Amino acid sequence: MSEKPSDSRPIGVFDSGLGGLTTVRQLLRRLPHEHIVYFGDTGRVPYGTRGEDVIRRYAAQDCAFLMQHDVKIIIAACGTVSSVAPNVLKELPLPTISVVNPASRVAASVTKNGIIGVLGTAATVKSGSYAKAVKAAKPDAKIHAIACPMFVPIVENGWNGVKDEVAKLAVERYLQPLKDAGADTVILGCTHFPLLAPVIQNFLGDDVILVDAGEEAARVCQVQLAETGMLNRENEGEGDVNFYVSDQPSGFSTLAERFLGVPVKKNVHVVDPGTL
Amino acid sequence: MSEKPSDSRPIGVFDSGLGGLTTVRQLLRRLPHEHIVYFGDTGRVPYGTRGEDVIRRYAAQDCAFLMQHDVKIIIAACGTVSSVAPNVLKELPLPTISVVNPASRVAASVTKNGIIGVLGTAATVKSGSYAKAVKAAKPDAKIHAIACPMFVPIVENGWNGVKDEVAKLAVERYLQPLKDAGADTVILGCTHFPLLAPVIQNFLGDDVILVDAGEEAARVCQVQLAETGMLNRENEGEGDVNFYVSDQPSGFSTLAERFLGVPVKKNVHVVDPGTL
Repeated sequence: MSEKPSDSRPIGVFDSGLGGLTTVRQLLRRLPHEHIVYFGDTGRVPYGTRGEDVIRRYAAQDCAFLMQHDVKIIIAACGTVSSVAPNVLKELPLPTISVVNPASRVAASVTKNGIIGVLGTAATVKSGSYAKAVKAAKPDAKIHAIACPMFVPIVENGWNGVKDEVAKLAVERYLQPLKDAGADTVILGCTHFPLLAPVIQNFLGDDVILVDAGEEAARVCQVQLAETGMLNRENEGEGDVNFYVSDQPSGFSTLAERFLGVPVKKNVHVVDPGTL
Repeated sequence: MSEKPSDSRPIGVFDSGLGGLTTVRQLLRRLPHEHIVYFGDTGRVPYGTRGEDVIRRYAAQDCAFLMQHDVKIIIAACGTVSSVAPNVLKELPLPTISVVNPASRVAASVTKNGIIGVLGTAATVKSGSYAKAVKAAKPDAKIHAIACPMFVPIVENGWNGVKDEVAKLAVERYLQPLKDAGADTVILGCTHFPLLAPVIQNFLGDDVILVDAGEEAARVCQVQLAETGMLNRENEGEGDVNFYVSDQPSGFSTLAERFLGVPVKKNVHVVDPGTL
């Protein structure tokens, strides 16, 4: 038996919908022994087009729900919440990780020409969150933040294939200014956007580095749990993963699998959003 | 003074978001003396991608909210609610109008070859509501119902211009089977879709009749109020129009004007969706 400290409580992850499953996918790869509780607010998705007050209220309810499950840390796997409601996270009585800071630090460290693109929802871009975080690490960085609201429905409807004409047109329409500006690094600041990464990479060219905000948050979570003696060292098998959603519409399985990479066959629980 | 009966209470209209303002637009044209209370559930829009239980729950809350404002009739200006939650409407203690029956009766009466297309959200098409209503009026009709979920974000993002390549591609992708089937009449079964009517008409050709479900509901409302002595005959000026929304995000004014046809300058009230 290891003498090292251990914490067997689950990791809590939430998102406005199912996009945060891209972060869970990375956690499963990095931390297979950890238990995970995921909450996707599918009954009220999307958040990125809503006003700030509503986003803050929903974020606080999502965190409260996860805390009922005795989580040891919360990852806000939602670019919108991480950007608009950072104080909701900071005021919680447990460690939290947003997707803004990890990706911003990586982008600041990998850029060569200092020109960094940020792609997010309307609310994320309006908040200026990524620009602020990148500049904290690299004050001379030039940030081009672009709201790409159509990327979310394009991914949710499965029109994100690398040869899909709509996906290609949408990427071109939103990202031409970024190409013109010569960005060498681009933050995918919404959990839906990694599914458009091949189309984005094709349009921007192979020299441009894409930074996946959800993936970086999972890496930071691993580092932080390891450094603070909070890894689950007691479990030698696979961790339990429980999925809570506030709606399970038809098409749920297909969409969930698209983000998680594997089928979501069990442990799916539906919560009434009125009780959040 | 008229001896005819009069009812000065407002008409209640609700939708999952702002699309129902296309119905309000028709009411203002037809019934300028009527007071109107509109509720758009912008804090939880869209409904069309959600599961049936959540749609029913939200619809009941929307109606309860309107009834607090002493409305004399409720128009469910939402294809999804009208399709999935008709019983929520029927069980209310006041007259209600859905968008399904008015449009279905018109389509059944205008079609020549009996081949009718229905365009709606995923939930609307899954419900089979329009097909059932059309067949009640015309049992030998052939119905081709097509879920067009991408039309909603295309309209909300203003990519619905008649020359917009994304709009044209989306219309072609969804409606090619309808063209192949030879439909001569097409029901626009979601309040967002009239804003894509020019693109749809261009693709299908000028011989095809488009039936706007929200517009037909407004006409039926006028007839029903007139027949039951419930028109507001006391007011000789313009009626009051009050807009209630559960979120007022940035971009609200632009989007509201897109649906209503005129700017929404005053009488906008924001309601906490948690209190519904």
